[in-house]
Amino acid sequence: MKAVGIVTEYNPFHNGHIYHIQQAKKETGADVVVAVMSGNFVQRGEPALFDKWTRAQAALENGVDLVIELPIFYAVQPSHLFAEGAVKLLAALGVKDMVFGSEHADVDFLSLAKQAPSVSQGKDLQDKNQTFASAYAHLLEAETGFKLEDPNDILALGYAKAVVDLSADIKLHAIQRVAAGYHDTLFSDTQTIASASAIRLALHKNKLEKIQSVVPDITLQNVQSMNNTINFEQKFLPLLKYRLITDTVGQLSQIYQMGEGLEHRLAAVALSEPGPQNYQNFIKSVKSKRYTFARMQRTLLYTLLNVKVDQMQSAMQEPYLRVLGFTDAGQQYLNSIKKTVTLPLISKVDQNLTKTNLRLDFKAGKLWQMLANSTGQQQDVTRKPIYVATKK
Amino acid sequence: MKAVGIVTEYNPFHNGHIYHIQQAKKETGADVVVAVMSGNFVQRGEPALFDKWTRAQAALENGVDLVIELPIFYAVQPSHLFAEGAVKLLAALGVKDMVFGSEHADVDFLSLAKQAPSVSQGKDLQDKNQTFASAYAHLLEAETGFKLEDPNDILALGYAKAVVDLSADIKLHAIQRVAAGYHDTLFSDTQTIASASAIRLALHKNKLEKIQSVVPDITLQNVQSMNNTINFEQKFLPLLKYRLITDTVGQLSQIYQMGEGLEHRLAAVALSEPGPQNYQNFIKSVKSKRYTFARMQRTLLYTLLNVKVDQMQSAMQEPYLRVLGFTDAGQQYLNSIKKTVTLPLISKVDQNLTKTNLRLDFKAGKLWQMLANSTGQQQDVTRKPIYVATKK
Repeated sequence: MKAVGIVTEYNPFHNGHIYHIQQAKKETGADVVVAVMSGNFVQRGEPALFDKWTRAQAALENGVDLVIELPIFYAVQPSHLFAEGAVKLLAALGVKDMVFGSEHADVDFLSLAKQAPSVSQGKDLQDKNQTFASAYAHLLEAETGFKLEDPNDILALGYAKAVVDLSADIKLHAIQRVAAGYHDTLFSDTQTIASASAIRLALHKNKLEKIQSVVPDITLQNVQSMNNTINFEQKFLPLLKYRLITDTVGQLSQIYQMGEGLEHRLAAVALSEPGPQNYQNFIKSVKSKRYTFARMQRTLLYTLLNVKVDQMQSAMQEPYLRVLGFTDAGQQYLNSIKKTVTLPLISKVDQNLTKTNLRLDFKAGKLWQMLANSTGQQQDVTRKPIYVATKK
Repeated sequence: MKAVGIVTEYNPFHNGHIYHIQQAKKETGADVVVAVMSGNFVQRGEPALFDKWTRAQAALENGVDLVIELPIFYAVQPSHLFAEGAVKLLAALGVKDMVFGSEHADVDFLSLAKQAPSVSQGKDLQDKNQTFASAYAHLLEAETGFKLEDPNDILALGYAKAVVDLSADIKLHAIQRVAAGYHDTLFSDTQTIASASAIRLALHKNKLEKIQSVVPDITLQNVQSMNNTINFEQKFLPLLKYRLITDTVGQLSQIYQMGEGLEHRLAAVALSEPGPQNYQNFIKSVKSKRYTFARMQRTLLYTLLNVKVDQMQSAMQEPYLRVLGFTDAGQQYLNSIKKTVTLPLISKVDQNLTKTNLRLDFKAGKLWQMLANSTGQQQDVTRKPIYVATKK
């Protein structure tokens, strides 16, 4: 069986994702689409709109055959670590082709990756008034002439560099992004594809009519039945303030990606009265020019999850393949790779997960449920993979 | 000037407290009443109904001349440590007489204290199906014949033992508890004194008419203007669950008074689905026969405050006298002892308190405000003592 791999967040699942799945099959002639998908938190450090099971179900009903969770220690990371984690999982699954969207699909990202400077070269160059992304883009442009400024191009280069660094036997296929850019929030009456960020914005403004034409029915149903979108001000911010107030600065300094005195700024803002009442303002009040907004959100999520540097590093040493769901074709593919798969395949977890590296995803699932006021099924323990019959 | 010392929680301030103040002056002929009062959390490990400033104001308007905060590392403790802390502060303030209520005011508690077994003798005797209080009471009865079962008697013996152990130059005066016992929840039309626990219960049931005759006007006003009583289910329990879910069992095991595997039971209950939705049930589900309900509440409060054994021990080594308020007479008394006071007198704290042992009270004040949805003034930083003119 020939499988094509895709890397996704599906936050939420929309028509652009269906197009991506169709193009992935068309481009590679694959029988099976394997999606590596972020769990309950996405790369920007935000909780996903719907839990991982809900999003996996939407994907399986719309062309994906196998959904594997990208563990939080890869999913909530800068693009190069996100991309590396995703490629590592796809390679372990025996996937030989990978299809991703890009703003410049004509670029040979593999060649670019081979010429591109390393992450540490970018970090060495970064000054106090500059984000890493900006420093790296300058260096890349100086060395290769390529202007790296679009989010999907950044990920594309990340995938390519991971394939090179991991010597992965994966062929890369960039497809041109259509219709809606990542940050595009415009809708027209004739458009059937909009970006996930545009859809989230419409949901946030409670403009459901704007998303009807750009998402499949299942997402529309999910939107209609969801209790409430996660409210950063009422849930996330109070819990974060609670932790910043009760933990010592010494404890905070051990949080993953904390550093450069950020723990002091965070503690001071949390203790200030009345202090920022809004999460965006909270972030603005602690953010320096070196950090992007997303980087700050990730650090604050790790703070909320109380993830220390050592826990994170040991978790990243032991990745796994957590199966969230499959179709018949996906199940056949899993059977076909059983003997060659190079990372542990996990279909069901029990209470013992608290002793393993699954602990981070488990905590994240619990936190997601607290943030979402979800009283539904647990996110991990006793949960079985979703099965969706392959459409004939 | 002659000062009499009293030890209080004022949760809330009521007519019985006025009686206590009057009796203290009458019994000793003192010019000045010095009250050592718990801060924002009381001995049972619960948040006080009103913050420490509100309760100090009520006391100063009703006969107390000087209010000193009993730091949380003494206030939220078993009775012997609570009593020892209070006596230590009164002795440091140069107080020579102490008046307290007791169910057996005819008992000579000082003589009893000299004959009484030590706390560690009680702990040695305690078996798995017994609380410390019960083991100690049995031992005391066997050795002295005195049956220690009433809460004010327990505290009275605690004060007496502290006077003996600290060699404090303080004369003890027990006065008979009148009208309402600690746990008494009965009201009659003619009664003007009810216990604080009865008043809290009436408040909890929103029966304001029941408390009108048993509290002074200021408490009635405080009750009427309070936003809402602290809701354990909506505030305390979610924050506690959040901490139990995100901290590791290893981290929880370092919390003050954790032990005997309690951290494992707590983590397991917090992770269970749907789990106890009510704080009382939460405690019942983790409580063993060795622990009283109050002991469990204290441990959970320390968990919520993230107070580790080492922080607690070092804080207890460095007590201080935090002035919450005074009348003219109280201020004169403070001036008169300035040169002889044996602990640091603190009238105002700035941001630097975060580096001192005041940090625990500071955190407690912040937490109290979160639990009470209080958006009022800060509890500590920049706050000045309350001044109330002595009534002529």
